[in-house]
Amino acid sequence: MENRISLNGTWQFREATSYDWLEGKVPGCIQLDLMAQNKIGDPFYRMNEIECHKLEDKEWIYRKEFDFEFPDEFDEIKLVFEGIDTLADIYLNGDYLGTAENMFISYEYDVTDLIKEKNNVLEVYFQSITKAIRSIERDSPLKLESSFESARPYIRKAQYSFGWDWGPRLVQVGLWRDVYISVIKDAAIEKPFFYTEKLKDGAAYVRVSASISYFADFDLKAEVTISYDGEVCGRKVVPITYGEIDAAFKIDEPKLWYPNGVGSQNLYDICIKLTMADVVVDELNFRSGIRVVKLLREKDDIGESFIFEINGIKIFAKGADWIPADSFLPRITKEDYYTFIKLAKDANMNMLRVWGGGIYEDEAFYDACDEMGIMVWQDFMYACAQYPDQLEWFQQLAASEAKEVLFRLRNHPSIVLWCGNNENNMGFYSWWGNGDPKYLGNYVYKEILPQICKRYDPSRPYWVSSPYGGVDPNSESEGDRHHWNVWSGWADIKEYLSDESRFLSEFGFQSMPDWKTILSYTNEEDRSILSPVVVSHNKQISGMERLIRYMISELGFPKDFKSFVYLTQFNQAEAIKKGVEHWRSRKFKTAGTLYWQFNDCWPVASWSCIDYYKRKKALYYYSGRFFANVLPYIAGEDGGITIYGISDLQQDVEAYVEVLCYSLDGEKMWEKKFNTRLIANDVVKIAHYDERQIAEEHVPHVVPVDASHCTLPVEKNWKLLNSVVYVRMIVDEKIYENYYVFDKFRNLKLTEPNITYHVDGTDIILSTDVPAFGVFVDTENDVSLSDNFLNMIPDEKYTLKCSKEPGDIKIFDISNLILRM
Amino acid sequence: MENRISLNGTWQFREATSYDWLEGKVPGCIQLDLMAQNKIGDPFYRMNEIECHKLEDKEWIYRKEFDFEFPDEFDEIKLVFEGIDTLADIYLNGDYLGTAENMFISYEYDVTDLIKEKNNVLEVYFQSITKAIRSIERDSPLKLESSFESARPYIRKAQYSFGWDWGPRLVQVGLWRDVYISVIKDAAIEKPFFYTEKLKDGAAYVRVSASISYFADFDLKAEVTISYDGEVCGRKVVPITYGEIDAAFKIDEPKLWYPNGVGSQNLYDICIKLTMADVVVDELNFRSGIRVVKLLREKDDIGESFIFEINGIKIFAKGADWIPADSFLPRITKEDYYTFIKLAKDANMNMLRVWGGGIYEDEAFYDACDEMGIMVWQDFMYACAQYPDQLEWFQQLAASEAKEVLFRLRNHPSIVLWCGNNENNMGFYSWWGNGDPKYLGNYVYKEILPQICKRYDPSRPYWVSSPYGGVDPNSESEGDRHHWNVWSGWADIKEYLSDESRFLSEFGFQSMPDWKTILSYTNEEDRSILSPVVVSHNKQISGMERLIRYMISELGFPKDFKSFVYLTQFNQAEAIKKGVEHWRSRKFKTAGTLYWQFNDCWPVASWSCIDYYKRKKALYYYSGRFFANVLPYIAGEDGGITIYGISDLQQDVEAYVEVLCYSLDGEKMWEKKFNTRLIANDVVKIAHYDERQIAEEHVPHVVPVDASHCTLPVEKNWKLLNSVVYVRMIVDEKIYENYYVFDKFRNLKLTEPNITYHVDGTDIILSTDVPAFGVFVDTENDVSLSDNFLNMIPDEKYTLKCSKEPGDIKIFDISNLILRM
Repeated sequence: MENRISLNGTWQFREATSYDWLEGKVPGCIQLDLMAQNKIGDPFYRMNEIECHKLEDKEWIYRKEFDFEFPDEFDEIKLVFEGIDTLADIYLNGDYLGTAENMFISYEYDVTDLIKEKNNVLEVYFQSITKAIRSIERDSPLKLESSFESARPYIRKAQYSFGWDWGPRLVQVGLWRDVYISVIKDAAIEKPFFYTEKLKDGAAYVRVSASISYFADFDLKAEVTISYDGEVCGRKVVPITYGEIDAAFKIDEPKLWYPNGVGSQNLYDICIKLTMADVVVDELNFRSGIRVVKLLREKDDIGESFIFEINGIKIFAKGADWIPADSFLPRITKEDYYTFIKLAKDANMNMLRVWGGGIYEDEAFYDACDEMGIMVWQDFMYACAQYPDQLEWFQQLAASEAKEVLFRLRNHPSIVLWCGNNENNMGFYSWWGNGDPKYLGNYVYKEILPQICKRYDPSRPYWVSSPYGGVDPNSESEGDRHHWNVWSGWADIKEYLSDESRFLSEFGFQSMPDWKTILSYTNEEDRSILSPVVVSHNKQISGMERLIRYMISELGFPKDFKSFVYLTQFNQAEAIKKGVEHWRSRKFKTAGTLYWQFNDCWPVASWSCIDYYKRKKALYYYSGRFFANVLPYIAGEDGGITIYGISDLQQDVEAYVEVLCYSLDGEKMWEKKFNTRLIANDVVKIAHYDERQIAEEHVPHVVPVDASHCTLPVEKNWKLLNSVVYVRMIVDEKIYENYYVFDKFRNLKLTEPNITYHVDGTDIILSTDVPAFGVFVDTENDVSLSDNFLNMIPDEKYTLKCSKEPGDIKIFDISNLILRM
Repeated sequence: MENRISLNGTWQFREATSYDWLEGKVPGCIQLDLMAQNKIGDPFYRMNEIECHKLEDKEWIYRKEFDFEFPDEFDEIKLVFEGIDTLADIYLNGDYLGTAENMFISYEYDVTDLIKEKNNVLEVYFQSITKAIRSIERDSPLKLESSFESARPYIRKAQYSFGWDWGPRLVQVGLWRDVYISVIKDAAIEKPFFYTEKLKDGAAYVRVSASISYFADFDLKAEVTISYDGEVCGRKVVPITYGEIDAAFKIDEPKLWYPNGVGSQNLYDICIKLTMADVVVDELNFRSGIRVVKLLREKDDIGESFIFEINGIKIFAKGADWIPADSFLPRITKEDYYTFIKLAKDANMNMLRVWGGGIYEDEAFYDACDEMGIMVWQDFMYACAQYPDQLEWFQQLAASEAKEVLFRLRNHPSIVLWCGNNENNMGFYSWWGNGDPKYLGNYVYKEILPQICKRYDPSRPYWVSSPYGGVDPNSESEGDRHHWNVWSGWADIKEYLSDESRFLSEFGFQSMPDWKTILSYTNEEDRSILSPVVVSHNKQISGMERLIRYMISELGFPKDFKSFVYLTQFNQAEAIKKGVEHWRSRKFKTAGTLYWQFNDCWPVASWSCIDYYKRKKALYYYSGRFFANVLPYIAGEDGGITIYGISDLQQDVEAYVEVLCYSLDGEKMWEKKFNTRLIANDVVKIAHYDERQIAEEHVPHVVPVDASHCTLPVEKNWKLLNSVVYVRMIVDEKIYENYYVFDKFRNLKLTEPNITYHVDGTDIILSTDVPAFGVFVDTENDVSLSDNFLNMIPDEKYTLKCSKEPGDIKIFDISNLILRM
């Protein structure tokens, strides 16, 4: 039995060269403690980040004095650090316990003989990480490629903390997770594991295992119980063999775990009890789900499929990439995690990819994903660099880290994939000219990790990298792909429409954060598009230039800074919508779209759909629509438009469809109404309308178009350019809407709408007289809205729900924010 | 002896399906004739180009009735077309003479037996080129890659006429060069050739050859005379062997031909006289120069050098790429050519590359280059496509074309290189995945052309392609290179500074044309940055987006459309300046900078330095400075600035140097004055100033900078950012100036200058109170200015010379054209 005595809470800390102890907090970090002491300004405000850069060379000491009440009986007393960030020497009562060197793993020390009843002094000496890794790099026989900080591959620390193209350089230092005394008596159950071997004939075959450490030779017995909602479905007493237990169960009519949108997230309770002469000496309870995950990789005429299958059902993955939710990790709460995952669920997502430049997340993250059906693509923490795995110490760190991660996380049914790294194999091939090397990280991704995953977790597949598959790891015909031609490669948004990737694990488009968020990190003089502070809060080099490049390409010039902010969000949402709708219409030739990125680690212009303060950007609202289980999609093709019905539902359904055509100045030109049928988990073509059907009258209008490599004037039909086609699909009383216009907004002549609204408590009801695009409700109060950035059909009512009273509201749409310059 | 009777002038023409003959002109083309008849609007105005697209499917007939006065004696009568564009059947008096299929060669027909004294009818039936080539393409066994028009590789016609990223799609049709009757009597001298075999011990060993065709068996004698400025330097009577003559001469103390800036452009007169029993039966006079050109390609520690050497002197090539000067070629006059080449000379250029997507230029072009010392890099006319050289008919066309080109042009000393094509070998390697194929054009570039050049022109080197050299034909370490990462690849301008190419045969940066030129093709409603007409007059896809991307990156937002126009020019000039100065400072590791592009073929936003109407853009004025034989160059390096003295002079010289440092608000901070020495044809380091020397006081100022892959706030010295360093170098009483600022203009706090001026006849004299950048004098009248876009030192006088009275003038500088948005 283990008993834990927390050492969290107030500690003292000081800079190594100083004599003044300050009050600090554990879990915590130097930067948060210094902020709390008003020794540095908020690093997120303006360019205060630089103050933290100046701290990087310093060394720090954390210290805790505590008394310890010895229990009557015990076998071992351990001091456990769940996370030390990163290079630190640990002393208890002056005795050296060891040196921590990996932020991702826990460190525990046997202090049975060192701990005292009174006045224990625990001290942790943090080295300067920056100095340390640059020294290792200088002395290294290797020369490693790496972005952002050349020496970061030498340290097992969240790589994003050295700066990324969406994150500041804030090199966190501190005891970032719990610290406690662990008192063990008799025995302890460790490394529990529950997993589904197979589903067959309506039954689930599951297995429960664990390691048992014990201090006596007594006859120990282990009992394993599996129950669902309080009802026992299986119980066994199992022998302990060489300190291991392993029990197989058959569970009839199992309640399976399904991703969001596919089925329920049923979870089972597993209890392992150790008894010694009928006395319980340890008990461990945990939760898991019954589900089988397969990665379907089958050769086809394009290349090789890449489809997640859960319990025999092919799943189109819909979601985004997750990064650490703060540059200072200790301040992320369990509630934060649940809020984030709820936001993902509400946006009809079913997968998040935990990206390899961050951290193995907190339990709460995975618990929330288990509960809400968000599948997790879990990277190991290697990103955008070559790693020194020729060196034995690094191999050992990598192996021990992988094992600990597996032991900690493998019971989460939400995790559906282990993935070796982020972009390093693509880097070998495309950036650094390494081909497919033996080392430089590849030994970890291709030897160490797959072996460990195979041995300790047969319950989910392993994948070498993201992206991977094909000779070029970023192949379009095999495996997953990071599509960055659009945005980073500056290519036009329409390139999405010709992309035939099998699975998009990254693609993205930047926008500014919410206006209220911008107010939080700027002062009055900073509020212009190219001010130093605004530029500094877009970490991508030439990020602002891209925001403008795409805005003027699609929309035109913004009227002012606030218009700019709003239009970047609209542009982002429209761009990602274009990609997702195209790829979903290829289901399952393409089998997933995870856009970069879900969240932010600070207030910044980035690719996220939710900003640091969890304020929703246009992309978030759009996601709920384009990720919905039913998506009416209008594609411009074959000299007209084709309407597709994309269904992620698991059964065929009837759908009532309305197709409405309006001129942009509000005249209803025609409408069609009909019933149709959507096929389960498939795409059907619902209708095609020739351009002449859409706009009968031909009013010739010369416009410049992108011809083969150059711009040519071409005659188009002005009646068509002046039209918008809406589709509205009703399935089971739920309404799904979409729209289509016949050119970029920049080339259309939008009519400024008259949008009327009234506020009814926490409801805002809107209506427009002419087609209105990107209709944004700007609330005085900082409320969460159920929807926003609407594309409104004339004379329809749209109701937005507010989390609380909105206060005064202002309404914009894109027509009044664009400047003809 | 040949006697020519011109058939130029007024012809009749009609569309094939019409019965109405209209009046046309030869040389000329359908489009010019239709414009002259007011049947179409000016294709350069607004988007009128589209009217010409509609003509492409039509067929046309040109017709000339003429009488012919038979001479008393003759041996042969030929009908000669110097240029037929392109597919046409030719009839004389109803008899079919042949079909033309190559615009680049002349066609001649023996009409001795067909021609009549009265009422000859000459008819030329032009097929629709577009229909014809698409039909060939459809039936072709090959599938060829090609931009702009997929079928264009099948026709030997100027490839740019199908549209390019700086040119409209205007598919010229017509008799574009002279038409005449050639009457031959007795004999004719053909294919004369003068070339320098070697220079040795102060003498030139030259050779004269020619072909002689004759109709009688009489004893013909040939006499060759070489003279300089009326004085005979060599004369020989030479035998005619199998219809060929060949004579070697040694010329003592020859007056060599040198490029502009290196020496004089001495030209010799060569006369070949045929006599038959002391009667002159033919005489041919032409002009050429004595010079030896070598392309020095020597292995070194970087790769392989690529240096033009003229008469033993290494030349740093300074210039630009030349494209056809009009979409309608017949209207370019000899005077136009001389004006253009004079402009190149005045901008201190010494080389133009005649680009392979245009035409083999008019004699006048090469004559002007001979006279003004502009070396010509002459491409063969293949560009950005795969060509069907597996087909025998294409091989034959290519060979006959090459021979005719050589016979016509090889006597021009200005031509220093034959080059197989533009970008096709790079295309094989980088765009189309062909590696280094046997055909697809390579058979022409690697077999046909080098063999023909070797046989018919030993006087200059042959180079396979531009770019070429190295495994990757666009290698940085060997051969010539097209650097398009900046601009087309969207990379930041500063990438120029890390480029180590051996010879830049292309790199470029767009700008808008002159404001007066914009007025010419727009009406009032078109005058905004993203109007359809403005977009249509930037033929590069996303060209406008790039103009804005780089403007906001370097300068910020423009205040209005006119500011935009002006700022694009300033930005272009600064960007190319940055590249050229860097590459010149690497002399001769880099041995040439030809920027894309010298001129335009219509009024357009493009990479040119002179617009279609020969109006000078900022880049033109800058070229005169950064291509000057003496260039003081300030490089930011080693924690300060280094001043280099780059000299293309052929002797060491004394230089007086002033280095002046001003704050941007006009205070003189310090100055240094000293004498130094520039080494002939070399680069010397003149001075280095540490940042602390430049700005003694340190005022910390946090600014965002591009760190390794992300943007970080960094502390810089505000005093430094607020400074400008000028260098002024006086050599032989000529003043050379340059300047350096310590960040992008976007990040500097410019003071609006008070610029005073007075006009004295055709002189404008300017002065400023604070450092002023891009000072632009906008004249009411359309005058040519000696200089403009000045970067002015406070309290100095700058005098601009106008070609005529300037009228009212307005003065801008960049500080009052940028908008904080």
